[in-house]
Amino acid sequence: MEEENLRSEIITIGDELLIGQVVDTNAAFIASELNNAGIDVVQITSIADRHEVIVKTLREAEKRANLILMTGGLGPTTDDITKVALCQFFKTSLVVNNDTLENIIRLFRSRGIAMTERNVKQAEIPASCIPMKNELGTAPGMWFEKNGKIFISMPGVPHEMRHMMKHYILPRLLEYPRQGAILHKTVITGGLGESSLNDHLRVWEETLPPHIKLAYLPQPGVIRLRLTARGSSRELLAKEIGEQVATLVTLIPEYIIGYDEDTLEGVVGRLLIERKMTLATAESCTGGTIAHLITSVPGSSAYYTGTVVAYSNEIKENILAVSRQSLVTYGAVSEAVVREMAQGIRERFNVDFTVATSGIAGPDGGTPEKPVGTTWIAITTPGHIVARKFQFGDNREDNIMRTTVTALNMLRLEILNYSTV
Amino acid sequence: MEEENLRSEIITIGDELLIGQVVDTNAAFIASELNNAGIDVVQITSIADRHEVIVKTLREAEKRANLILMTGGLGPTTDDITKVALCQFFKTSLVVNNDTLENIIRLFRSRGIAMTERNVKQAEIPASCIPMKNELGTAPGMWFEKNGKIFISMPGVPHEMRHMMKHYILPRLLEYPRQGAILHKTVITGGLGESSLNDHLRVWEETLPPHIKLAYLPQPGVIRLRLTARGSSRELLAKEIGEQVATLVTLIPEYIIGYDEDTLEGVVGRLLIERKMTLATAESCTGGTIAHLITSVPGSSAYYTGTVVAYSNEIKENILAVSRQSLVTYGAVSEAVVREMAQGIRERFNVDFTVATSGIAGPDGGTPEKPVGTTWIAITTPGHIVARKFQFGDNREDNIMRTTVTALNMLRLEILNYSTV
Repeated sequence: MEEENLRSEIITIGDELLIGQVVDTNAAFIASELNNAGIDVVQITSIADRHEVIVKTLREAEKRANLILMTGGLGPTTDDITKVALCQFFKTSLVVNNDTLENIIRLFRSRGIAMTERNVKQAEIPASCIPMKNELGTAPGMWFEKNGKIFISMPGVPHEMRHMMKHYILPRLLEYPRQGAILHKTVITGGLGESSLNDHLRVWEETLPPHIKLAYLPQPGVIRLRLTARGSSRELLAKEIGEQVATLVTLIPEYIIGYDEDTLEGVVGRLLIERKMTLATAESCTGGTIAHLITSVPGSSAYYTGTVVAYSNEIKENILAVSRQSLVTYGAVSEAVVREMAQGIRERFNVDFTVATSGIAGPDGGTPEKPVGTTWIAITTPGHIVARKFQFGDNREDNIMRTTVTALNMLRLEILNYSTV
Repeated sequence: MEEENLRSEIITIGDELLIGQVVDTNAAFIASELNNAGIDVVQITSIADRHEVIVKTLREAEKRANLILMTGGLGPTTDDITKVALCQFFKTSLVVNNDTLENIIRLFRSRGIAMTERNVKQAEIPASCIPMKNELGTAPGMWFEKNGKIFISMPGVPHEMRHMMKHYILPRLLEYPRQGAILHKTVITGGLGESSLNDHLRVWEETLPPHIKLAYLPQPGVIRLRLTARGSSRELLAKEIGEQVATLVTLIPEYIIGYDEDTLEGVVGRLLIERKMTLATAESCTGGTIAHLITSVPGSSAYYTGTVVAYSNEIKENILAVSRQSLVTYGAVSEAVVREMAQGIRERFNVDFTVATSGIAGPDGGTPEKPVGTTWIAITTPGHIVARKFQFGDNREDNIMRTTVTALNMLRLEILNYSTV
């Protein structure tokens, strides 16, 4: 390898990507890991699982990049032809690799299941590559070098690829020269649309130096602002980006949810842990999505006691003690009912904060007075109760996610208002 | 356009893709829609939001395809440069388009918010393009033709792009000649690993004619088998693929969950609706993920009454009537407790079927006797109760998803065993 910075291209192989049956999460994972290691990704290319296409794409990629990472096309089943294409590209042939064979035997022994002929065949790899151990599966990774460029082939099963990338590929890549430094800082905002946010930030944005770039990344209910700085000194960039973020925070303090990998559910959890306080939820239209997000956080059992998803009115009455009169008079999607749900779960679960949701997610159930997207959210704190109405759109999935994000952000603000640690 | 079948390439533009901050769901959506329309996708390419890269990639793409679809780089904020790059590539310049300006004004009026200067600027489009209306946002789509090839640029906001694709882009594309026919049929299996499945199917697989291809697509807990047939007559292909699926079904009848876009939660819902029966869940380690999936199905309120997520032992006792003695003697992750949870939710919610989960999702909470991944699942039916123990892995996210999928598949089998309609 010449003394040249790594510039990478990611190639994901599989017909399932080109027919849209599978979303390419592998490319995003690899890109993120490379980026964190200071290695630029110049292109991501998804192609068919066909011999001549794989060879042609490798020829094109080596013109754009000096580090090419591939995933896919290495499973135990008969639709795999990547290894044969690699043999042609690198002018080599398949041989049985003993370490790989031992790894496969070990895996099957630990799982207590019998090996098939196909699994044995997976121990065959191109003679010119360095095998990369796959601790979690049967298909090994392969590391090739050719004309000063690196080519790496990994299995397509996400957790196998991730493990291999972290434990075997990245440590080797870190030995090569990389570009000076790339630093990212993401500021996560909630409560402002893209144009309004831009109006708040435009004047500041125009003062950013040319080596610091700002991008707006909208998601349902939140917009992530990503600052990217490039330069030679990591320390200097960290200082500069820290100063810019400090300015940004003064411009929109009330709209900032968190930073970088922060999530609303993670931020809420941290606030509760700091205050040693607890949370329960009562969900109707969100159907457990709030609970699903909250419990995705490791350690959430310290502050989250649980949820009641009350899809039926009977459950709202029997478990959450919502009054029949409110249900009859105002309907399940109403301020009265969502307040009683939030109070009911508070009393049943004996916690410091509660969140309740009730809305018409769609596609059915709308009326002229309460069209699809009508949503009520209530929060209780040790001090008071607040309820707000929202009018979201006509897409079920979007309505569930926007209600969830909005409820978690309301909760975050209520926790902050209630007490600062 | 010459009389030539459409061969497409999808280009997704955005630095967020190359640093792995965002997963490229747009490419998967577009690929799926094109495929269903009988248009082959030969490559998906993700590139940076940079002028020279966009122009260079368009030049490369027009060698591979005669239909190029782009998304991204058209938002109202200052990081957008796609339109200028398009002007260079098509040798044209930006002009204000009145229809687009009217659409932007209409959107802002309906939302009751003020327009900014940036929003007005979004009405500028390259003079040589046909604008494509964006009903849900401010950035218009653009349709170009050059040397008999079609280039389409769409906004990157997913729901805007999806709406534009369905209502404006696809209807126009369907007027062009396409290749004979592509047909896919996906059979969804659960309960067998990839190699075991292959052992069951290999002999049959080898009898498949060359124009019908089989692919294995593994996901947590399920493997999708995709049959793809290509030929000139859609009717003939449908007949052939139907016969092959019929053979496949006889080989692994007990492992087939559904077909095509079927999901476990959708299949379970259909079975319950057919039987006019109801379901409730009591979740511990899955933390609402089962409820989240079940309620993602439109119309699920007809059969699903709700869930109690009992993260704390108090809730298990107070709401689900789990005995303190079982909790103390056997611990929360035990056969006794998961059975009592399933019984408790059954009595509280008065339903036909219940599912209960209790496990150690990790990363903390494991012991030598009950390591992380230890999971109990119980199902009750009107006739009986069944509980099974599973040992999953050490990844929290994976454990939650595998428990969820396994519980839903156990439920599916219990519903089928209980009664056939």
